[in-house]
Amino acid sequence: MRIGVLTGGGDCPGLNAVLRAVVRTAEKQYGSDVVGFRNGWRGLLDNDAMPLDRPMVHNLLTRGGTILGSARVAPQKLHDGLGRMREVLDAHGVDVLVPIGGEGTLTAAAWLSSEGVPVVGVPKTIDNDIDGTDLTFGFDTAVSIATEMIDRLHTTAESHQRVLLVEVMGRHAGWIALNSGMAAGAHLVITPEEPFDIEAVCEMVTARFERGHRHVIGVISEGATPKPGTMPLRDGGLDEFGHRRFTGVAQQLGEELERRTGKEVRTTVLGHVQRGGTPTSFDRVLATRFGLHATIAAHEGHTGQMVALQGTEIGLVPLADAVARLKTVPPSRLGETTAFTG
Amino acid sequence: MRIGVLTGGGDCPGLNAVLRAVVRTAEKQYGSDVVGFRNGWRGLLDNDAMPLDRPMVHNLLTRGGTILGSARVAPQKLHDGLGRMREVLDAHGVDVLVPIGGEGTLTAAAWLSSEGVPVVGVPKTIDNDIDGTDLTFGFDTAVSIATEMIDRLHTTAESHQRVLLVEVMGRHAGWIALNSGMAAGAHLVITPEEPFDIEAVCEMVTARFERGHRHVIGVISEGATPKPGTMPLRDGGLDEFGHRRFTGVAQQLGEELERRTGKEVRTTVLGHVQRGGTPTSFDRVLATRFGLHATIAAHEGHTGQMVALQGTEIGLVPLADAVARLKTVPPSRLGETTAFTG
Amino acid sequence: MRIGVLTGGGDCPGLNAVLRAVVRTAEKQYGSDVVGFRNGWRGLLDNDAMPLDRPMVHNLLTRGGTILGSARVAPQKLHDGLGRMREVLDAHGVDVLVPIGGEGTLTAAAWLSSEGVPVVGVPKTIDNDIDGTDLTFGFDTAVSIATEMIDRLHTTAESHQRVLLVEVMGRHAGWIALNSGMAAGAHLVITPEEPFDIEAVCEMVTARFERGHRHVIGVISEGATPKPGTMPLRDGGLDEFGHRRFTGVAQQLGEELERRTGKEVRTTVLGHVQRGGTPTSFDRVLATRFGLHATIAAHEGHTGQMVALQGTEIGLVPLADAVARLKTVPPSRLGETTAFTG
Amino acid sequence: MRIGVLTGGGDCPGLNAVLRAVVRTAEKQYGSDVVGFRNGWRGLLDNDAMPLDRPMVHNLLTRGGTILGSARVAPQKLHDGLGRMREVLDAHGVDVLVPIGGEGTLTAAAWLSSEGVPVVGVPKTIDNDIDGTDLTFGFDTAVSIATEMIDRLHTTAESHQRVLLVEVMGRHAGWIALNSGMAAGAHLVITPEEPFDIEAVCEMVTARFERGHRHVIGVISEGATPKPGTMPLRDGGLDEFGHRRFTGVAQQLGEELERRTGKEVRTTVLGHVQRGGTPTSFDRVLATRFGLHATIAAHEGHTGQMVALQGTEIGLVPLADAVARLKTVPPSRLGETTAFTG
Repeated sequence: MRIGVLTGGGDCPGLNAVLRAVVRTAEKQYGSDVVGFRNGWRGLLDNDAMPLDRPMVHNLLTRGGTILGSARVAPQKLHDGLGRMREVLDAHGVDVLVPIGGEGTLTAAAWLSSEGVPVVGVPKTIDNDIDGTDLTFGFDTAVSIATEMIDRLHTTAESHQRVLLVEVMGRHAGWIALNSGMAAGAHLVITPEEPFDIEAVCEMVTARFERGHRHVIGVISEGATPKPGTMPLRDGGLDEFGHRRFTGVAQQLGEELERRTGKEVRTTVLGHVQRGGTPTSFDRVLATRFGLHATIAAHEGHTGQMVALQGTEIGLVPLADAVARLKTVPPSRLGETTAFTG
Repeated sequence: MRIGVLTGGGDCPGLNAVLRAVVRTAEKQYGSDVVGFRNGWRGLLDNDAMPLDRPMVHNLLTRGGTILGSARVAPQKLHDGLGRMREVLDAHGVDVLVPIGGEGTLTAAAWLSSEGVPVVGVPKTIDNDIDGTDLTFGFDTAVSIATEMIDRLHTTAESHQRVLLVEVMGRHAGWIALNSGMAAGAHLVITPEEPFDIEAVCEMVTARFERGHRHVIGVISEGATPKPGTMPLRDGGLDEFGHRRFTGVAQQLGEELERRTGKEVRTTVLGHVQRGGTPTSFDRVLATRFGLHATIAAHEGHTGQMVALQGTEIGLVPLADAVARLKTVPPSRLGETTAFTG
Repeated sequence: MRIGVLTGGGDCPGLNAVLRAVVRTAEKQYGSDVVGFRNGWRGLLDNDAMPLDRPMVHNLLTRGGTILGSARVAPQKLHDGLGRMREVLDAHGVDVLVPIGGEGTLTAAAWLSSEGVPVVGVPKTIDNDIDGTDLTFGFDTAVSIATEMIDRLHTTAESHQRVLLVEVMGRHAGWIALNSGMAAGAHLVITPEEPFDIEAVCEMVTARFERGHRHVIGVISEGATPKPGTMPLRDGGLDEFGHRRFTGVAQQLGEELERRTGKEVRTTVLGHVQRGGTPTSFDRVLATRFGLHATIAAHEGHTGQMVALQGTEIGLVPLADAVARLKTVPPSRLGETTAFTG
Repeated sequence: MRIGVLTGGGDCPGLNAVLRAVVRTAEKQYGSDVVGFRNGWRGLLDNDAMPLDRPMVHNLLTRGGTILGSARVAPQKLHDGLGRMREVLDAHGVDVLVPIGGEGTLTAAAWLSSEGVPVVGVPKTIDNDIDGTDLTFGFDTAVSIATEMIDRLHTTAESHQRVLLVEVMGRHAGWIALNSGMAAGAHLVITPEEPFDIEAVCEMVTARFERGHRHVIGVISEGATPKPGTMPLRDGGLDEFGHRRFTGVAQQLGEELERRTGKEVRTTVLGHVQRGGTPTSFDRVLATRFGLHATIAAHEGHTGQMVALQGTEIGLVPLADAVARLKTVPPSRLGETTAFTG
């Protein structure tokens, strides 16, 4: 059997570990081989492929990023995307395609599957917002880095009696903010799931200093938004390349907080360091098991599925179900922070 | 309400985080207070107690070990242990006892519960061998440290064309060896669940060098044993304090391997560094949630139970069920290493 | 003898380690005692003091920040600052004052010394720009963190074929950029000592991609400036508190680079994470030795001096000399990057 | 010009970084090229060579070990070693040889130089015991790892009221024990320079517990020895391969300490983890600068020399001087620990 793989969307620690696991399992367990398509769906559309064998995936377990490269392309929106991809898959004799990616990539994978292409998806998202799996690889690494950084900010904030806000990843779901905030003892956690009330934030900050504490650490998801009507967010507008100019929510919340409370506020945007570098041991194991089980599923004919962590086991869920909704933080989990913030 | 806490067994990253979570939840969410007993069951037998309040648990989230101290005492085996403990609990007005510990501590907790004392257990074990919960805190930290150390050994082994064996914790269960071996790309993983065959190990090592590889990394659980009749383990005997003299299995396997294959073998015993220091972000979150939910269970009258990670949720399982058996690595998980070793 | 200590300027990993060393040396080696003044010179002006003894400095070796707090006050510019400080020093019976701080703090210390107050200075600066000492504590920690972060960015940049710019600390001296850039294999290092030429930067970036490389990593000191007339820097202006609005040089260089080359550019500002948290082992040793030797100097009457690392030894240099100029990166050191960039 | 390189002795973080620096400097700065000899002097004796160019040293900055391999061979003791090496050097057209290694390698290099072969040495030793240079690369990494491990042991020791002894590298010099002990707040530091008195150690331990402390952390160099006549060290004897059976000094000191004081003692031998893996940023910079300046010296005809760190500069010292004696810890440095131990 021949398996095709590609990596789509933003890069994520563990992508290379999945590739290594797919290749090793295919070769050692099934005597199959593997072909990789470069730069996500782009490589499948343009026939930009490279064979992947064991020497090529040597030393990939600990390496961040993806040797296949990645890009954000939605093949279902292209004219004749399906036809071109079918042709390329046929040309390479690919029996099953294993796309590794986030919501966008998996949505395309579900569509491809519905069109009859044998597909086994592997979920990948720093933000941990893919439904149907307890966790995704990359998330533990991102939380670890954010936690380490917030640990470092505590002493600075204390020494200078400051408010320090940290913006972490999480456009639609607050998992990174929730877990790194809980792990690093943040006094304030703001996630996209629950719009924040600037007045309540100011009151908390003021009350904390009045109780004699010397600092406040807040963790803010990049996708956090104020309650309607309470604090307008400046729009940075687009630059000439169509990129949104940076006016992060944490920065703006910080400015407003400083204006209203008179406390010194500093903001740190963690940015890309959350998604790069060597994966944690947790993510290496999860990525390896995902790659292993995706390859098994491909050989056993369980296509149209996505591998998923279910408790301690790796199971399969229908791709269509997995992409039906995003997995956001439920109110019960947000409620768990109550005893630890303020 | 007043909650009593104690920490039993070997220390473990996250114990202090549980104590902090119990105190904060009791005070902030219920207006209850907390008393700690020192040195495990010993403190409850000898009335060695200290009140725990929020200032006392400040800064405990990131601190390894346990401020309550720990000891290995089995109160159910003592003459009138029950009577003395009841008296001390009454003297302090303790409504519910929250013992945090491993198999030994939880077995005593189950017995205490069966005798009518209201108890909510919190599972703690580096080895991850407590049944009824997906994972225990401390385990991720141990695996992370072991993985980091094995990562470091790869380059030395390669530079000198050696076999490097690493002995990790795991007396009865091979979880640490399995996960750190998979995370660090070990070529050999030996766990207590599956006695090893020294001849098969020698063959693998020889074959690997013959295929042109420059090194072999093996991860061995401290509780690993050879197949009966294949390689006798020297007994180090006891010293005058009744401590077993050190003759670790990895060291002996290494000597035998060197004798039989003629390859240079070095052994590293990771030892206590696996169980000390700051917990990973994963373990901080798990420990915090365990402490939170144990305190909620205590206030809601769910006694005789142990908190447990079930997928992404914290649930409760009867203490008696949890201690009925150890959770060892199932054959299916051991089988997952096949594609990655050799 | 009684020693007074204070910590001034921005916080820095190792400040607490110096305090611990001063207290332990004073008590154990000389039977002297120590009084700390809070929030830099402010505590000396306002008589805000706390005795420091060994239990109080327990566990400080690994802790970032400063338990004394810090502030930026220039006592020599205050009306009757000298008189008030003399009074407070007398009231506490302080024989020698040990101010720990950067250029500002040490300039005040030199002035105080010139006015007859016995002073032994301890140099502290993340930026490593204090003259007369090979290195200052905090610098190695900052470089380590920056290096680890840049390591992480490599794989992301490669996976997406991007230019990634990292802004690191260094207002007047490029030591952090130089060393983290060299340690992390950056392709571009821009420091305040050598104004950059935007055209040359664009050419290098373009040439690198043309040679087939997939990414560019640049490290930029926060104090870097363009060559006059080549690229105007937007001024962010001041907010109502007099804080300069953030318009970092790296962000602006990145926008210009993207505009001119058409390559995708991302910017990360490391910010406060560089100065917080546990010091590296190098900085703990240096801080401990600085505190030890400052206390010895105080007892041996070597006042008006600053402790300094000279090769492997801790020596003394006159405070007045140390603050006469900033220690910037010499051209020979900048030249060392030639073989490693581009 | 053609430069030959080889790496001798035990592996060490930073070796690959030196190789990368030599190749990049030779190619970019001088248009020269580089040939590597495998497995130390062995490759030069056996003509086992590989050309090294820039693509081959890509990604080596962060990688531990040495891609050239290493071995312990003393060519000056071989019959006609010199003749064979000259032949191989001539065959490859090597103008200057750059051997990278410790005392053994550099002694051979000095001999080769005295025989008229143009040589520029690069000092490498985990133990930091090479004279003539302030520091060697690999040392900072070893101290960092040891410190991190000792940090972890503190909380375990405290939780169980134990003595924990850590054996670190350092056969003839106690630099690693000194610096990691000082950095991690050890209560006891034993180095080869000063034979230890078991009775004094017992008294210190007993006194510490009597003062109410809950634990003792001791750091012991592997080369430490007891004062003559105070405590005999068991000899583990040799196994059939001539390897000394392991009976480390820390283990034996621990057993004796436990026997005499009745305190629980545990011993951890850090072993090879100290010398593997990614170098610290400090060591990457030092290794890079060593490689750069060795290549410059080779091109400028400064042979018979060794590059050396002198304060903040890289200078040259005659090879013969550098190997004349080992650099051990001077009494003044050992004395610096007084205020911090006990």
